Amino acid sequence: MSVQSPSGIAGRLQRGDVFEPRCPSREVLKHVTSTWGTLALIALKPGTLRFSDLRRKVAGVSERMLSQTLKQLEGDGLVRRESFATVPPKVEYTLTDRGMKAALLVEALVDWIEDSMSVPTG
Amino acid sequence: MSVQSPSGIAGRLQRGDVFEPRCPSREVLKHVTSTWGTLALIALKPGTLRFSDLRRKVAGVSERMLSQTLKQLEGDGLVRRESFATVPPKVEYTLTDRGMKAALLVEALVDWIEDSMSVPTG
Repeated sequence: MSVQSPSGIAGRLQRGDVFEPRCPSREVLKHVTSTWGTLALIALKPGTLRFSDLRRKVAGVSERMLSQTLKQLEGDGLVRRESFATVPPKVEYTLTDRGMKAALLVEALVDWIEDSMSVPTG
Repeated sequence: MSVQSPSGIAGRLQRGDVFEPRCPSREVLKHVTSTWGTLALIALKPGTLRFSDLRRKVAGVSERMLSQTLKQLEGDGLVRRESFATVPPKVEYTLTDRGMKAALLVEALVDWIEDSMSVPTG
């Protein structure tokens, strides 16, 4: 009765297939590897940060871009946002367990790039 | 006589500091983690590919975007381009040693994202 997607694609998509344009893993990859996504994940690795501290750490990011980036990472289940009704109000961001795993993998890549910048290419 | 950059920044930049907006490591990170950069690196991991085969493998990429992506990766010393004066002319792309290292790190991230798509978030 219902329209079914071709079982071939459904089967391939079960695990996630980043080479498949419609696979949602491409979206998560885009968030995690965006410049600000990458830097936010690494900045949060040592522990919880308030928005303003996070923004100071990720030098060069605008308030709007950082907000948007954190919203995406929160939607992917990688970052947890907590707001406190203090005066002034406080908003804190923390990596989830999955976010920590993503941060470690992204950091390995960034560490390698940073190290490889100091040696001649070739 | 000459204008010197502050030694503090120069010192920090020696290894590469991706949190520093002017650090060239940010540019390389952008190339490596762009959607097409990531997919091109992983697609080339098993071995040399011709442009047309690479484009088929990286489903959804336009000819122009793939060209631009490969040019960036070549400029970063991650991909080697070889053209052969055959009829018809042939262009092949191969990962350099550094490109292979980048591909392995990027693949670890993609593998994890693909795997984590199949389990409930939280």
